[in-house]
Amino acid sequence: MNILVTLNSNYMKPLKVMLKSMFINNPNDSFTIYVMHSSLEKQEIDMLKEYVGNDGHILREIKITDDYFSDAPVLKHYTKEMYYRLLAFKFLPETLDRILYLDPDILIINEIRSLYDTDLTGYLYAAAYHDAAKINELNKIRLKAYEMEAYYNSGVLLMNLEEQRKKINERKIYDFVEENRKRLVLPDQDILNGLYSQYIKEIPEVLYNYDARFYQYYKLATKGEVDLDYVINNTSIIHFCGKRKPWLKNYSGKFHSLYKHFEKIAMQEQARVTI
Amino acid sequence: MNILVTLNSNYMKPLKVMLKSMFINNPNDSFTIYVMHSSLEKQEIDMLKEYVGNDGHILREIKITDDYFSDAPVLKHYTKEMYYRLLAFKFLPETLDRILYLDPDILIINEIRSLYDTDLTGYLYAAAYHDAAKINELNKIRLKAYEMEAYYNSGVLLMNLEEQRKKINERKIYDFVEENRKRLVLPDQDILNGLYSQYIKEIPEVLYNYDARFYQYYKLATKGEVDLDYVINNTSIIHFCGKRKPWLKNYSGKFHSLYKHFEKIAMQEQARVTI
Repeated sequence: MNILVTLNSNYMKPLKVMLKSMFINNPNDSFTIYVMHSSLEKQEIDMLKEYVGNDGHILREIKITDDYFSDAPVLKHYTKEMYYRLLAFKFLPETLDRILYLDPDILIINEIRSLYDTDLTGYLYAAAYHDAAKINELNKIRLKAYEMEAYYNSGVLLMNLEEQRKKINERKIYDFVEENRKRLVLPDQDILNGLYSQYIKEIPEVLYNYDARFYQYYKLATKGEVDLDYVINNTSIIHFCGKRKPWLKNYSGKFHSLYKHFEKIAMQEQARVTI
Repeated sequence: MNILVTLNSNYMKPLKVMLKSMFINNPNDSFTIYVMHSSLEKQEIDMLKEYVGNDGHILREIKITDDYFSDAPVLKHYTKEMYYRLLAFKFLPETLDRILYLDPDILIINEIRSLYDTDLTGYLYAAAYHDAAKINELNKIRLKAYEMEAYYNSGVLLMNLEEQRKKINERKIYDFVEENRKRLVLPDQDILNGLYSQYIKEIPEVLYNYDARFYQYYKLATKGEVDLDYVINNTSIIHFCGKRKPWLKNYSGKFHSLYKHFEKIAMQEQARVTI
């Protein structure tokens, strides 16, 4: 499977945890990890290559220099990295027909082959839709519903590269950013939803983009069916959305101990690599 | 390492989870599991043997028939199984010098070799001491302190079998039970504390008998040192004390997702065995 990640040095540790959880829980698959970045050191890339290689997988670097996006508009508080996942198709090998983009703030606890093989005929992407309306119905349970709006979440994004090469125009993206300059909150996600939502195939969020903040919501909304047993046995991807992250101090949440477990395994591996 | 467990059919599933977590997190050790019981079916024992054998370990059955304890006093609500761990030395091979008794409601998340090799010279047991006084000092945080008293917890019990063969007299145990008939709440633990506390070597509870209910207490009492990172990386044994158990519906707690993770692995194994 082809996996795409984009990151800077701050996300090295979560990236390793994500990758390790993916390797462990998909033991019969081989992965090629494309790392798209502008600021990682050679040493960091080499270490990642060794880390991934030790589990029998491949890492390929896609280093982006500033001149690639010289005519792209820039927003306050956001770097040009916001364009990486949307324009990745321009930098990936022509031979690839699909790739799965993954945020580093996720844990993969079951197989992702079923997601990867989703039929994408006629679609640019597959992504999970997070529906704020449904959550508001349940506002009797105290949820931070304000954190959630109705949108396709761009943290888990299966890409139809062949279709993207035909249909996605970077000029159109830049124009959209210029026109909506003041309205963009999560730029890449807003662009995705603003320009391409009709070309996104919906995938079940509970299976492939389970928001770790909303354990109680999912459970209540399904009358108890999507409880912890269900998640542990069926959910492929747990996404630690929002500002509070499980690798930071003072995090708390239903999946904290599980995250730390995989983090431990990932860091033991690192110790082995460094020795 | 020699491991002792005592159980009935109700605890088959937790036992498997406990064993699986022990095997996974102690990959360089070989285990011989002694299962002391009176009511398991042959089929259940055979299945356990296969389960343990598939990971390269050994299971030995110690079947107890009623006549073994014919002169032992019986308490309301308790069967004669309450004597099993205290008198196990009588039924174990003479060649064993030590064994580690483990309750089935635990998870083993790091090495236990350091516990197993504890120097027991002059002691009958090694166990962790749970100190209610310390907890009461911290009663500003709402703890179910009433569930906890100061005692050696008998759920993780390293046994000096050579010393026990010399010093433990079953008549003395029976007399203690007769005399304290009305005062015994957790009989085996009460006997252990009432008769043998001066021959118990204390082991650090945070490492070897971490009470899963008291995450916040341990963290506060250590000024934040024993946080989740510490536990995941250092604690060997998490003990799910009390009535609420992580394999039952509606459990919630800091280690719920971690427990369910190991339960999944244990049950996958079972699926493989049954096929």
